[in-house]
Formats: sequence, C-alpha cells, structure tokens
Amino acid sequence: MMSLGIVFLSEVFGTAMLTLLGCGVVANVALKGTKGNSGGFLMVTWGWGIAVFCGVFVAAKSGAHLNPAVTLGLLVNGKAEYAPGVPIDVASTLTYFGGEMLGAFLGAVVCWAAYKQHFDAETEVASKLAVFSTGPAIRSTPWNLVTEIIGTFVLVFVILTLGGTPSGLGPLAVALLVVGIGVSLGGPTGYAINPARDLGPRIAHALLPIRGKGTSDWSYSWIPVVGPLVGGALGGIVAKLAPIIITVAA
Amino acid sequence: MMSLGIVFLSEVFGTAMLTLLGCGVVANVALKGTKGNSGGFLMVTWGWGIAVFCGVFVAAKSGAHLNPAVTLGLLVNGKAEYAPGVPIDVASTLTYFGGEMLGAFLGAVVCWAAYKQHFDAETEVASKLAVFSTGPAIRSTPWNLVTEIIGTFVLVFVILTLGGTPSGLGPLAVALLVVGIGVSLGGPTGYAINPARDLGPRIAHALLPIRGKGTSDWSYSWIPVVGPLVGGALGGIVAKLAPIIITVAA
Amino acid sequence: MMSLGIVFLSEVFGTAMLTLLGCGVVANVALKGTKGNSGGFLMVTWGWGIAVFCGVFVAAKSGAHLNPAVTLGLLVNGKAEYAPGVPIDVASTLTYFGGEMLGAFLGAVVCWAAYKQHFDAETEVASKLAVFSTGPAIRSTPWNLVTEIIGTFVLVFVILTLGGTPSGLGPLAVALLVVGIGVSLGGPTGYAINPARDLGPRIAHALLPIRGKGTSDWSYSWIPVVGPLVGGALGGIVAKLAPIIITVAA
Amino acid sequence: MMSLGIVFLSEVFGTAMLTLLGCGVVANVALKGTKGNSGGFLMVTWGWGIAVFCGVFVAAKSGAHLNPAVTLGLLVNGKAEYAPGVPIDVASTLTYFGGEMLGAFLGAVVCWAAYKQHFDAETEVASKLAVFSTGPAIRSTPWNLVTEIIGTFVLVFVILTLGGTPSGLGPLAVALLVVGIGVSLGGPTGYAINPARDLGPRIAHALLPIRGKGTSDWSYSWIPVVGPLVGGALGGIVAKLAPIIITVAA
Repeated sequence: MMSLGIVFLSEVFGTAMLTLLGCGVVANVALKGTKGNSGGFLMVTWGWGIAVFCGVFVAAKSGAHLNPAVTLGLLVNGKAEYAPGVPIDVASTLTYFGGEMLGAFLGAVVCWAAYKQHFDAETEVASKLAVFSTGPAIRSTPWNLVTEIIGTFVLVFVILTLGGTPSGLGPLAVALLVVGIGVSLGGPTGYAINPARDLGPRIAHALLPIRGKGTSDWSYSWIPVVGPLVGGALGGIVAKLAPIIITVAA
Repeated sequence: MMSLGIVFLSEVFGTAMLTLLGCGVVANVALKGTKGNSGGFLMVTWGWGIAVFCGVFVAAKSGAHLNPAVTLGLLVNGKAEYAPGVPIDVASTLTYFGGEMLGAFLGAVVCWAAYKQHFDAETEVASKLAVFSTGPAIRSTPWNLVTEIIGTFVLVFVILTLGGTPSGLGPLAVALLVVGIGVSLGGPTGYAINPARDLGPRIAHALLPIRGKGTSDWSYSWIPVVGPLVGGALGGIVAKLAPIIITVAA
Repeated sequence: MMSLGIVFLSEVFGTAMLTLLGCGVVANVALKGTKGNSGGFLMVTWGWGIAVFCGVFVAAKSGAHLNPAVTLGLLVNGKAEYAPGVPIDVASTLTYFGGEMLGAFLGAVVCWAAYKQHFDAETEVASKLAVFSTGPAIRSTPWNLVTEIIGTFVLVFVILTLGGTPSGLGPLAVALLVVGIGVSLGGPTGYAINPARDLGPRIAHALLPIRGKGTSDWSYSWIPVVGPLVGGALGGIVAKLAPIIITVAA
Repeated sequence: MMSLGIVFLSEVFGTAMLTLLGCGVVANVALKGTKGNSGGFLMVTWGWGIAVFCGVFVAAKSGAHLNPAVTLGLLVNGKAEYAPGVPIDVASTLTYFGGEMLGAFLGAVVCWAAYKQHFDAETEVASKLAVFSTGPAIRSTPWNLVTEIIGTFVLVFVILTLGGTPSGLGPLAVALLVVGIGVSLGGPTGYAINPARDLGPRIAHALLPIRGKGTSDWSYSWIPVVGPLVGGALGGIVAKLAPIIITVAA
C-alpha cells in the first residue's frame, strides 16, 4: 500500500507542473511584450496539453489525477483503487483534493515569477487574471455551467473508459485529449474542466502582490468548480453504466 | 460473436464523440465572440483529427467505423468481419449505418448546447450552418463530388491497407491521417469524407431551435453523402485489387 | 526476394500519396478561395509531414524510399539491401527511380483534380506553379543549391543512421523529421529535398491543361534535382563514415 | 566502457543537429523574405522541439545530453553514469561540455549557410542576432535569470526523474517537453535553457562574416549560461531529494 504522504506529494508536484506550464502559455499569449503573442488559441491548447503531459509523467505514481473532477469520477465510478496501492476512502479522497489544490496554487505562483516583468508591463487587469483563472466569453450562469459540464464529461469519460486513470491512459493520449477538448469545447468558457486548476491559481491571484491587478472575479469562481465536478461525476456514472446498458442491449 | 446491440451503442457513442468535438472546433473558430477565433484552419484540422482519435478510442469494440464510407469500404473490400466477432451481412451493415447516423446527430446536438450563447450572438446564418455541415468554397456539383471522392478514397484506402479498421490502424495514426486529409484536401469542400458526419448534424441543424438560423442547404446535402460513399467504395476496391495487381506484376 | 514489379508499384502508390497530400496542402494555402488560406507555413509543413507519414505506410513493403535522394543515399552508404528482399543493383535502383517519378507525377495530377475549381479561380501564375514545384524565395544558383543540399543531408543522414530506410525509422519519426526540416530549413527554397517530388509535379504542371498557367520555370528545375541528390549522397557517405571516425577516435 | 572520443563526437553531431534546426526555424520566421514568416511563435517552438527530437536520435549513444545544464543536472543528481558505459568524472564532464559547445557552434554555422541570402537581405541587426542567440523581451538581470532558471529546472527535473537521460526519456517525450517549455515559459527570454545552445551560436555570430551584423550582445550573454546551469543543478537536486522527501513523508 502506498502512503498518503506519497500520494499527496506526487499530486502536489504534478499539479504544480500542470499550472506552471498551463498558466504560462496563457501569460505568453496574453501579457504585454512577450515573445509568444503571435501564438493564437492553438498554441494555448498545445500548451495546456503538454502541461498535462508533463504533469502526468511527474505524478504517475499516484495515478496523476491532477484534478478533483477526475478523483470524483473515479470515486463515483466505483473503481477499486485510485491508483495501484491507493484504496478509495475518505482520507485518500481528501488527500488527492488537498494535493491538487496546493499544487495548482504553487504552480501559478512560480508562473507569476517567470513572467514578473510582463505582469508589471501589462495594463489590462482582465489579461492578468486570465493567466490564472478562466472566465466566460459571454457570461451566463446556466450555459457556462453546461459548457464546463460537457467538457469535463468528455475528459473523465474517455479517461475512465480507457485507462482507469490519466497515467493509465498514457501521457500522450491524455495530452491529445486535453488539446482536443480545448480546441473544440474551450471557446465559450476557456475550459477550466478542473476545479483545482481554476481555484488554486485564483487564490494565488488574490494573494500575490501583482502590480495593478483587479478583482479575482469571485462571483464567477464557483462555476469552474461546480461545473467540472458535475461533469466529472457524470463521466464516472456513464462510464459505469455504459457497459451495463450494453450488456442489457446484448 | 458480438451482439448487434453492442455494435450499435459503440458506434453511437464513438460517432457522437466525433461530431461533438469536430463540430465544436468549427464553432470555436466560426461563431462570434468565442475564445478560439484566432485558431485558423490548422486548428480546425487538429480538432477533427483529435475528434477521430477520441471516437476511435470510445468505439474500439466495434472497430470504430464512425463512418458509413468506412463500413462500405470494408464491405466492398471483402473482409471476413467488420470487427472481431462481427460478421459482414445486411443486419450488421444496417446496424453500423444506424449507429453512425444517430451518434453523429446526437453529438451535434450536444455541441449546440455547449456553444448556445455563441449561436445566439452570431448573426451570419452561413457560420451557424458551417458548425454542423460542410459546404463548398466554390459550388460545382461534379468537382465538389470529385474532391470528396478523392479525400474519402485516401481515408479508406490507407485504413484498409494498413489496419483493416480504424481501431486496427491505431487511434494516433488515424488521427494524423484525418489531419492530413483536412489540411491537404479540405480546401475546396471542407472535407466531409463521411456521410454520417455531414448528414446527421445537418438534420440536427434542421430540427434544433437555433436562433436566427437559415436553410440547411439541402440542395448540397447529397454531395457529402454520395461523394464519400463512392470514394469509400473505390478505396475498398483498390485496396483489394492492389495486392492482386502486384502479384500479377510479380 | 521481392519482385521489382512489387517494388515499382509500391513506390508508385506511396509517392503518389506523398505528392497528392503534399501538393494539396500548398494548394489549400496558396490558391484563391480555399478554406485553408489562414493556415500559414506551419500548416504547410504539417501537411507535407503527414503526406510522408501516409506515403511511408502505403509503401512500407519496398522500404518507402519515395525519394531518389534516399535511394541514392542507401546506395552510397553501402547497405546490403534497399529493403528486406530487395538487393541493391542497377535494375533495382532504376526501378526505385522510375516508381518514384511516376508516382510523384500521378499524385500531382490527382491533386489538380481535387482543386480544379481553385486553379480556375486563381489568377497568379506563380501560385499555380507553387502547388506543383518549389521555387526560391531569393534566386541564387549556388545558395539555393547549398540550402537544398543541407536539407536533404539532414533527411538522409538521420534516416540512414537510425532506421536504414524511411519505413525502418518509423512513419511518425520520419514525419516529424520532415516537419522539422520544413519549418527549420524550408525558408529559402521551399525544401524540395526530393528530386521526384519536385520534377514529377513540374512535368504534370507542364502537361496538364491548367487554365491560365505560366511557365514551369525549367531554368530552376535542375536545382531541386541536383541539390537533393548531392545532399542525399553526402548523407549516405557521412552516415557510413561517422561510425568509422568514431572507432578511430576511440 | 565507451571511449570519450565516441562521447565527444556523438555530442558534437547531436548538438550540431539541434542548433542547425533550432536556429533555422528562427531564421525562417525572423529573416526577411523567407517562406516561413507566417509561422508565428508556435512554429518556432515546434522547430526547436523537433530539433531536440533529431538531436536525441543522433546522439543516442552518449545519452544525448546536448546541453551542459543536463550534464550538470546528472552530475549533481548523483547518477552512477552519464550514459550506459560512461562514468561520471572530471574528464567525461569536460568531454560533454566540449562536445556540446563545439556542436552548437557548428550547427549555427551551417544554419547561416542555409539562410545566407536572407541574412544578406535582412536589415534589422536584432533579427540577425536572434537567429543565433536568445535575448530578453524586457531586460532585467534578476528576472531574466529567474525565468531561465525556472525553464531549465522543468527541463532537467522531468528528464532526470523519468528517463535518467534525454535518450532514456524517449525522443518524442523530450521533444514535447521542449515544445511545452517554449510555449509556456519562452515568452520573457526566448528560453535558452541550454548554455551551449546560446553561447555556441553567439560565438558563431561574432566570428562569421555576416553582412551588416551588429553586436553579439555580450553583456547579456552570461544570463543564458548561468541561469540554465543554476536551473539544471536545482533540477538535479530536487529530482534527488523528491524521493527522499516522499520516503520521509511516508
């Protein structure tokens, strides 16, 4: 059996890698004076895809959830373990959630350090927040929720059906899946599809001494938490029911 | 032997994943106010490529045809089975066609929900239809048919020669093949190369209460059905004849 | 032993696939009114990379040279065989050259059919020729030769060192190699790096009834033939000498 | 045991391939009149990623360090060997450093030859230097160092934790890692993340008879040397400590 300390540190390292590289690509495209302004949305999606790729490598030991929606999907799905040697219970669930949140926060802090000069040079407060957290293109509580639910459903359903955990599916396949969700379903809300990826950096945005920053948009902050959790749970349920329906149909 | 119910549901799920992500990337590039407008045609082709990648994973059990042109190509090619345990006969052929059509329709419906606010904001009726179905850059019945026939020939010929079915070729190889057909042969007609991918979403466009939508362009609708079926059949025939020609030449 | 008829047909099919998809992506970016005008140079390089990927799959049986510079590199390198069961001699060498040239010509013809309407709509004669054959950004016989020699050296050296033949290196690795040569060394001359890929389509350009076409630029045509042959031969020699030098150094 | 002559030549060839293709993609995007000006930053990052991919293939025998920061990371990490059969000592360390520096210099020279006409046509001295060496978007000694340290830490930490050496991690995984560092952390300083990749070409810039060239910006030149060495050493230390911390936590 793996100790929860290992699980915790593994998820902290992996999720920090995820938000360091993920927030970084947004900084590169969004902040003033960087070399990557010409990259466009396709570059953003490759950046997040490879961020997941690296995070899955780093956190392979704990199954590389990196995402409370994935943890919840596995829980709801009724798997026997979160990763080889990690039983599913209250303590391990909270360990995953805690590691994911702390890692996501820390990665965003390091990203801020990497782009310090460009945060200082940028005058748009919205661009500064965008590096850390998602926001909707058109604000609408129900439809923003719907979009996040659909995106996270795809993420968790594909992972659970095929690999059990992100590290089980293989880092390259998960990376391409995340690129695909980004280019295809990221248009309306910027595809949080991960409560930790959105909330951890948002807390970092609130706490860090970022020059000339605006609000952390707390009124929106619950949508990229609740939406992905609902989507992940649905993904876990459907991934469980699908074989049953199929057996009945058969 | 696999039951046809399993085949049907497998193709429904896989083809729904295909059109959800595929139509989604077009929505992201084409509709007003989304975050992905800067993505360009390359992003569209990666979106469809990864849509196929995910669909092939999801429908691996039934060989992941996801496309009546592939099913027809296998039929014409004279394979022994559509997938391991699925004999080729009238019932299984119709099961594939039905699952592909229903899945393509359902995926487009979910895509519409994900982009609801942007469909409402968009004023160009052509952009709304483009999310669902292909249309020609320059309208010409014979040449649009030729382009779709060539594109689908490449798809089915490469799949049949090398993998037997899309899942046999490997999800990444099929994804790259579809990206390649898109960037190289997608310029004139938007590369339907799949009757279900085009007709299923077109029916969704006709039935859904999309705000301010225009016609579903039924006068063009048969071309991305007939062209791919002809191209797929040709791919199946040539893939069968090539080894025979070679043997004669030898 | 494999018959030369099989080798010939295998190279014809594979090289036709190469130029169909490769010329296709240029048509999509360069010709008037296509859907892919926004793709940019990165899309062109992915298009050619995947064109090689598909061509290598299709012609795997004969080792998938697809390129006289690769054939020459293998010859100079002193390999025992061109592909498993294909001895290196005058007859087999001419068979490869012939299959590569015929295939490259045929693929370009099919590409023209796929983009017929856009060739008709395009008014720039240079854009029409660019679909078929490469041309220099800045015309200079010695430096254009140098660029083509360097690019083809990289191609053949990496292939020979690591895989023996393109199919031995693996289709994905060869595809990435070709993408890399394109983005990195394609700027000055458009990276022919393959005499057949350039000359075959140029002959097609000269023979086809393309509306409003200009000259086929025969004065430049020998550079993308001679440069790649020199570069391929150098690649073959250095790939042979490198281990010897290393052994002496050791 | 492998001779140091083999190690040296292997690193020379591999690092030359790295800077030939890496500097090449910058030349293609930055210099006047090339065909790749539309490629944007995403193309630059793919170019460097595939440059590493090819370099790792070519130098697989010596573990494909290609980078003094990687060599230093392995040294600090306390590995038993630099590559199978290459013990870690002063002589082998200097052999790696020397091979990396010479290779990086030579690759840049060949790149200059490939783009000779475009160096002549370009009038901006900054664009000419950019082909060879990195420079900061906003000049700031401490923050430029921070960015280079973070980027190189990610590179070396992921490589050491998972693959031991770049070739141990696998060429495709290293390539994607480098693409990811580029798109995500390359915005402020252009991601040298490798002292040899920056200093070798800078020396080439200083020595080559480039028409109308400006200064080689020696005042900045130590930052992309010191930053990556610090980051690489940190990566090596943390990769060593992480399992120890985890064991204590357990």
